[in-house]
Amino acid sequence: MTITRQIVLKSRPMGRPDETNFEFVQTSLPALNQNEVLVKTRYLSLDPYLRNMMNEEEFVGPSFQLGQVFGGLAVGEVIESTSLLFQSGDFVSGAWGWQTFANVDAEPLTKINPDLSPVSTALGVLGISGLTAYFGLTEIGKPKVGETVVISGAAGAVGMLAGQIAKLFGAKVIGIAGSAEKNAYLQNELGFDATINYRMSNAELLAELKKAAPDGVDVYFDNVGGTITDAVLQLINPGARIPISGQIAQYNQTGTEMGPRIGMLLVKNSALMQGFSFTNYSSQFPEALEKLSGWIKEGRLKYKEHIIDGFEHTPKAFSGLFSGENTGKLLVKIPD
Amino acid sequence: MTITRQIVLKSRPMGRPDETNFEFVQTSLPALNQNEVLVKTRYLSLDPYLRNMMNEEEFVGPSFQLGQVFGGLAVGEVIESTSLLFQSGDFVSGAWGWQTFANVDAEPLTKINPDLSPVSTALGVLGISGLTAYFGLTEIGKPKVGETVVISGAAGAVGMLAGQIAKLFGAKVIGIAGSAEKNAYLQNELGFDATINYRMSNAELLAELKKAAPDGVDVYFDNVGGTITDAVLQLINPGARIPISGQIAQYNQTGTEMGPRIGMLLVKNSALMQGFSFTNYSSQFPEALEKLSGWIKEGRLKYKEHIIDGFEHTPKAFSGLFSGENTGKLLVKIPD
Repeated sequence: MTITRQIVLKSRPMGRPDETNFEFVQTSLPALNQNEVLVKTRYLSLDPYLRNMMNEEEFVGPSFQLGQVFGGLAVGEVIESTSLLFQSGDFVSGAWGWQTFANVDAEPLTKINPDLSPVSTALGVLGISGLTAYFGLTEIGKPKVGETVVISGAAGAVGMLAGQIAKLFGAKVIGIAGSAEKNAYLQNELGFDATINYRMSNAELLAELKKAAPDGVDVYFDNVGGTITDAVLQLINPGARIPISGQIAQYNQTGTEMGPRIGMLLVKNSALMQGFSFTNYSSQFPEALEKLSGWIKEGRLKYKEHIIDGFEHTPKAFSGLFSGENTGKLLVKIPD
Repeated sequence: MTITRQIVLKSRPMGRPDETNFEFVQTSLPALNQNEVLVKTRYLSLDPYLRNMMNEEEFVGPSFQLGQVFGGLAVGEVIESTSLLFQSGDFVSGAWGWQTFANVDAEPLTKINPDLSPVSTALGVLGISGLTAYFGLTEIGKPKVGETVVISGAAGAVGMLAGQIAKLFGAKVIGIAGSAEKNAYLQNELGFDATINYRMSNAELLAELKKAAPDGVDVYFDNVGGTITDAVLQLINPGARIPISGQIAQYNQTGTEMGPRIGMLLVKNSALMQGFSFTNYSSQFPEALEKLSGWIKEGRLKYKEHIIDGFEHTPKAFSGLFSGENTGKLLVKIPD
């Protein structure tokens, strides 16, 4: 009999989530049903979108219920299987959430080849983060050679990939992130053309942006929203494209925040703004993953994982997402 | 020697423009240069976008200078020509603005065939209004059979055409306009499925919209902006498309108005919002005009002109645009 440790949603946060919103429980798993696998979790993916599923009101998918095991995508090893699809020793990714072991339906799982790349990449550059960056640019942003692309949340898992991919398309890339260290990494290691630390007044931010983007902004890959977005929108060029992957500045707001109306800016510039999820493009996943892994192999796309060691640190690490404590993809590693 | 009456910009409005912002002057026209025509104006097109060109700060195109002849598109008869393109008696449309006679460059003028349809339609259904409605729907809104389309400014020149075109595409169409008479016209004469009078509280407007659009909103053709848009956006469906032709509610604002931030709604619904001008699609004008005139001939597309008689009423009529005094395309007719 397998004992699993789980993290369940204990209370719904007002504002930023913290450790008190979660509870650790322990339970024993029943025997497998037909077409299930028993997985031992190796990595948990901590992503901003999970915050939206802590509210009572449904966001994109159903919300979590109080007492329900929380979390999103994970990677694990198959320990036991009653499915023809997988056998013991296989690595898989799936949405079983924050638990150390789980009995899961085999059907929706994705098999991972550990010889091709580290299994954790299935949660980042070859998973949600990479696909979000890729489709946001290829389907909406469509940067052209010489255009100026601005990325908010540039040191996050999606942002740092989006910036590099925009560079691969020949654009000039400006990243906005929250510390000098992050920005140094983006410029020196990832080849961003310029970076801005957003921790300044709105007027200063606008002035810095104007300096960094003297020809205006053609593509704004927005992961953040709020006052950073207000500033960037002031500088969009005619025909600008604005993919919105997320609005982390808004996730912890209670109620609707007010901001400057943007309709006039969109009309004036015939600009396009589009919210999206990588899941909208699932029919194109194989092609996208081939591109992403090709770039990695060629050394043209770098990824960074911010790994927290130990299941017990999961709630705290998740809370840190919303104060920008991570650089790159935030993962929890569960020791073997 | 020809005497022309002109209306020049006298002062820049704070808020809604009125008659005091304009001045009537009279001048005599010089002899024609090569490749010019002398036109006698028959119709002036009064359009909301002109308001944006009264400000010092440039909007889409250059602003008007104080003392400059104001106005936009007009239709007139060629009285004299030094161009091989036109001869006396031809009808043309062009952007010579608010003057009864004008010497104009022949090159950018468009010839009108008065036998095909009344010459005034070159300013409306077969001009800026029709093309705006057409491209907003065919290029951005893309309504599908059975989808719900909401139109703001539905009794305006663009709105009433957009609603009818959306019906031709098989959508359910809800119009929002500012009086019971306008709405009765939209439903009884133009076949809108439902209408809402926006002159009520925001909460009531939202409740009325919910009643009229129980399946949510797939396409929102926005001519207006402001609190009407706030309400409609609450009801958008996943995959919604929002063409923005204009934001008449914003044009008379001084400074940037605040409103609810919309990024989260766009992400949640993977919704697309795009500002546009019909001029973005100029390569497709011939095909669009063929479609529009075909629908008119078949009796499937009706247009309505709101004609003010007399050049001297132009400033007052223009001001009335911003309080919704017109139903359909607002034109000034200059008696023969």
